Amino acid sequence: MIIHLKSSIGLNEAQEIAHRLQAILIEKEEIVLVSPSKLQELPSDLFAKVSSFTAVPNDIQLASRLYKKETREIKFSNFSIGGESNSTLMITGPCSVETEEQIETAAKFCVEQGVKVLRAGCYKPRTSPYSFQGLGKEGLLLLDKMRTKYGLQIITEVRDASHVEEVIEYADIVQIGAKAMYDQGILRRCGKANKPILLKRGFGSTLQEFVQAAEFILSGGNDQVILCERGIRTFETGTRFTLDLCGVAFLKEKTNLPIILDPSHAMGYAYGVADLTRACVAMGVEGVLIESHPRPKEAWSDAAQQLNFEEFAALQASLKALANAVGRVMV
Amino acid sequence: MIIHLKSSIGLNEAQEIAHRLQAILIEKEEIVLVSPSKLQELPSDLFAKVSSFTAVPNDIQLASRLYKKETREIKFSNFSIGGESNSTLMITGPCSVETEEQIETAAKFCVEQGVKVLRAGCYKPRTSPYSFQGLGKEGLLLLDKMRTKYGLQIITEVRDASHVEEVIEYADIVQIGAKAMYDQGILRRCGKANKPILLKRGFGSTLQEFVQAAEFILSGGNDQVILCERGIRTFETGTRFTLDLCGVAFLKEKTNLPIILDPSHAMGYAYGVADLTRACVAMGVEGVLIESHPRPKEAWSDAAQQLNFEEFAALQASLKALANAVGRVMV
Amino acid sequence: MIIHLKSSIGLNEAQEIAHRLQAILIEKEEIVLVSPSKLQELPSDLFAKVSSFTAVPNDIQLASRLYKKETREIKFSNFSIGGESNSTLMITGPCSVETEEQIETAAKFCVEQGVKVLRAGCYKPRTSPYSFQGLGKEGLLLLDKMRTKYGLQIITEVRDASHVEEVIEYADIVQIGAKAMYDQGILRRCGKANKPILLKRGFGSTLQEFVQAAEFILSGGNDQVILCERGIRTFETGTRFTLDLCGVAFLKEKTNLPIILDPSHAMGYAYGVADLTRACVAMGVEGVLIESHPRPKEAWSDAAQQLNFEEFAALQASLKALANAVGRVMV
Amino acid sequence: MIIHLKSSIGLNEAQEIAHRLQAILIEKEEIVLVSPSKLQELPSDLFAKVSSFTAVPNDIQLASRLYKKETREIKFSNFSIGGESNSTLMITGPCSVETEEQIETAAKFCVEQGVKVLRAGCYKPRTSPYSFQGLGKEGLLLLDKMRTKYGLQIITEVRDASHVEEVIEYADIVQIGAKAMYDQGILRRCGKANKPILLKRGFGSTLQEFVQAAEFILSGGNDQVILCERGIRTFETGTRFTLDLCGVAFLKEKTNLPIILDPSHAMGYAYGVADLTRACVAMGVEGVLIESHPRPKEAWSDAAQQLNFEEFAALQASLKALANAVGRVMV
Repeated sequence: MIIHLKSSIGLNEAQEIAHRLQAILIEKEEIVLVSPSKLQELPSDLFAKVSSFTAVPNDIQLASRLYKKETREIKFSNFSIGGESNSTLMITGPCSVETEEQIETAAKFCVEQGVKVLRAGCYKPRTSPYSFQGLGKEGLLLLDKMRTKYGLQIITEVRDASHVEEVIEYADIVQIGAKAMYDQGILRRCGKANKPILLKRGFGSTLQEFVQAAEFILSGGNDQVILCERGIRTFETGTRFTLDLCGVAFLKEKTNLPIILDPSHAMGYAYGVADLTRACVAMGVEGVLIESHPRPKEAWSDAAQQLNFEEFAALQASLKALANAVGRVMV
Repeated sequence: MIIHLKSSIGLNEAQEIAHRLQAILIEKEEIVLVSPSKLQELPSDLFAKVSSFTAVPNDIQLASRLYKKETREIKFSNFSIGGESNSTLMITGPCSVETEEQIETAAKFCVEQGVKVLRAGCYKPRTSPYSFQGLGKEGLLLLDKMRTKYGLQIITEVRDASHVEEVIEYADIVQIGAKAMYDQGILRRCGKANKPILLKRGFGSTLQEFVQAAEFILSGGNDQVILCERGIRTFETGTRFTLDLCGVAFLKEKTNLPIILDPSHAMGYAYGVADLTRACVAMGVEGVLIESHPRPKEAWSDAAQQLNFEEFAALQASLKALANAVGRVMV
Repeated sequence: MIIHLKSSIGLNEAQEIAHRLQAILIEKEEIVLVSPSKLQELPSDLFAKVSSFTAVPNDIQLASRLYKKETREIKFSNFSIGGESNSTLMITGPCSVETEEQIETAAKFCVEQGVKVLRAGCYKPRTSPYSFQGLGKEGLLLLDKMRTKYGLQIITEVRDASHVEEVIEYADIVQIGAKAMYDQGILRRCGKANKPILLKRGFGSTLQEFVQAAEFILSGGNDQVILCERGIRTFETGTRFTLDLCGVAFLKEKTNLPIILDPSHAMGYAYGVADLTRACVAMGVEGVLIESHPRPKEAWSDAAQQLNFEEFAALQASLKALANAVGRVMV
Repeated sequence: MIIHLKSSIGLNEAQEIAHRLQAILIEKEEIVLVSPSKLQELPSDLFAKVSSFTAVPNDIQLASRLYKKETREIKFSNFSIGGESNSTLMITGPCSVETEEQIETAAKFCVEQGVKVLRAGCYKPRTSPYSFQGLGKEGLLLLDKMRTKYGLQIITEVRDASHVEEVIEYADIVQIGAKAMYDQGILRRCGKANKPILLKRGFGSTLQEFVQAAEFILSGGNDQVILCERGIRTFETGTRFTLDLCGVAFLKEKTNLPIILDPSHAMGYAYGVADLTRACVAMGVEGVLIESHPRPKEAWSDAAQQLNFEEFAALQASLKALANAVGRVMV
């Protein structure tokens, strides 16, 4: 149950109530308490202290459309997604920052293509210790340079809690990767950050668990959370993962969080990315995240799935009319 | 390996070669032999007897774009899909034929909406013997009546080999359901039929197995096969199945068969069907198959996922511009 | 709901009641009606006509321990499984009947090893039309010969409804394969057969659906049904399938049907079969089904997973003490 | 490739070679380099500097039986697992430390049952922020008390990198939970610890990825790694997860790491745990990890799956003969 306390209730009393209801206390303009969802009826002695409350059927609480009906808005410098906008955001860039030349080529290409947000990883959650692990801090500094030089927003991934501070410092949007979706060290720290968080769904995680991971961030006080579906692991291995658009329909129906889709990691092969991106845009979501690289075949990671610039440009050119056909505008 | 014999080679000699190569013999305008794909080099003594041959890397053979580059065309009375058409076909109708009034209401609605193909099941592959099992032959006769009265094409499902003759007799398009995808009794009989076959992917079947099931029909001599992805079974149970659009990208890339998608069974809930249908159309496939019902809440099967007429009409109205944005035309 | 009618109720009246309750009627020593499980309360006017009834929470009805608490017994000529026996049955033999020499070698080996039931397939549900498809009727005749000559019971698989009669005629135990689990043409016919049916779980089928498929046979009047778990399809492809022993624990708890496990198809590689077979026996089930072959490397199908005779003999020798340690006896 | 350098090669030169081969350097009695597995041939100029080397086909390297044929031994104060022992270790205890009374009751019960290792969680990786999250440091102190008072070894879980130091300090065996399997902040830190690490398989992780996660620890210099299979996520939801014993057969065949199995989390229901534990022991692995609780119904987490003391005692009593039947001894 989500309980908004009256402004007359002080912090001490709020803490007592929170303790009694085993609730998490969020202190913003108002004090909000979130108790386990099994609490379905407000204790009658609290009626006088409460300005509003919402009982929800399970622990999708702050993210539920039963609590906030409208999709939450995330504002960037000169655009926003969600809320009353009909924006569909394009994010692109290489899998990893490799060299200054490589990331600068990618940044210039973004500018050329009208893309406002550049993606690239510095801490790579590789499954083998014997593969390229990312440039780390050095990569973050290169991304910082691109931001300043080209006026781009930067999204980059935090791999584990040991470097979460660094990523929060340098990113405009903090990406929590699929393998880190359950990482409370990251989730709780991001709940205290004042930046948008793009939370990727774990490839073995249910939709319920996915949104509950977002609840860790939301209940920490940060309401700028974006959900990112990027493919789940199924028996099918002809493609890398299986993009779960049924799940996206579920998330659109049940939650108030903006959604950005990543067909590149789902497909795992460049040949299917354009068609899938168009399918994602037609779903009416808030954005797409596409891997592109100046020279995909030489990429230090995810070589098979990154689009080359020609492929990306052709895709990008096809999206405007498509977005319009579903009442949206590409940004 | 697919081998086209010269017209000078008679049937007896062709049969000898087929026996020697453990190949299936298809007798149409030409005699075509299909041997197991492990045969990668044509025996040199056969060169003089062969007009052309194609070695493919696995048992996706007749369906492979390595064999026929263009998508196969399926012709109907007044339209076609695949080939040089850019048609995206809409098919709709209820899950099951229930009563004459119900199916006639559905048929009239198709006419009203410009839909040329009516779907409805008569033999239902229910998982429990204690549920409604379909009207059987009685249902086929009702569909036949609708065809005549309203000029619609009929697609209906064969559940098992015991009634495959009946369905082939009454359907314009024979649907092999997901649970029957491996049924060789059905597949082999459909290979001898002169009607288009819509083959649904088993929800536990790999893409490779799916196309190999189509090879049973193709190698039987019937080249009018349509592939239908309808959702696979994954760990996610918030939706009924998981529509595998990555798999569709794979099928478009690798196979020469037209593709029709069924988001209704994938989603399992009416609320997500419109968005998913738009995603399917944006993928650039040959058609979509959507369940709709005059009164979904009273439906005798699949009540949760069928669109009511108002919902269907709104969806249908949105598809024209969308199809155009990806260079296609709704039929 | 399962309803046993009093012996005073004639067939006509029973049929009327069945029609009214949408129930399936089974006519054996008693008349039993099985209505959809949503019927939870017996209409009060029927109390006088009913000798006993059982309401169950879902469509696992005749197979439920709520209906019959004890595991059903299946009797063979000189042994039985289930019931009050503590027998764990060993079944072995090659994947396919290939030649008379091959199957006779296998049959002799069974006799040598004290194995009473020989398995081998004649109609192979191959996923490619270009692979070996089985010897068909010729294979059945060879199995028949082995039965007579060596006093073995024969289990062999029905692939689809087009040859179900033949298999029922020649087999002592009719195997319904994983790919045919939903095949109502087979299930309904086996419901009328007077032979034990071994029903394999579809590799994409839930436990609920699996037992409901058994209900098709049970409600047809044949109560000699054995459940066989043989591995489900998961994201893990390092092994062929994933043997679901948690599912076996579920089946043991909820259902009254004997269980035979097939670790060979689950594992897909001979190296793991012995350990897995011991795990299966330790689960306390009614039997195991192991593929063995005189010369596995030359097998015409499933070459990787069949044990050679030395491996099988070593495994067989280890099972007696193990079975005893869990209170059971190998037969 | 794994390369053991001659003792005449100093650290500086070793670092140069490592840099050239993109290899990880492990400095113990010898200097060992591990380069990406794509290196299949040793550069000829290095032959003189190398005492031995092993090329393996993929990034299962230090864990591979191709490198070390025997199962690695892990020594505890008065027993060991792996190596030449045939020990099967029993570990039990509650899901979470709740109160001193609760954990002391559990500790006494271990002593009574001859169990040497007590398990209990302090940092719980719950999927909802609104559930009980564990006692944290307070729990670790209670476990420390039990160790001293009852002479038990303690295994407890690290949830994320933010408290890995604390857990390494207090645990005798550090458990990395399923949700943290990819967490490099934890894996890398555990690679530097001088304690046994029990690494649980992520429920959405392939066997290959699972062993590669162990490679992060092994290549950090800690060779005391135990693999723990605890159930994977599949389409089947009648049980909580699916225990993957085919995967265990794979791990036994391919890797040199001891294996401990957790049927409690796989099953999710107490009723199946005893049968599954017996199946695990019959697999011939190095141990089992079973949840038990003084009063399961009142447990603060995982109430459904914990055995009560009576159930545990009955299970424990059945294991000795079973272990003996497969040539092993319970410890």
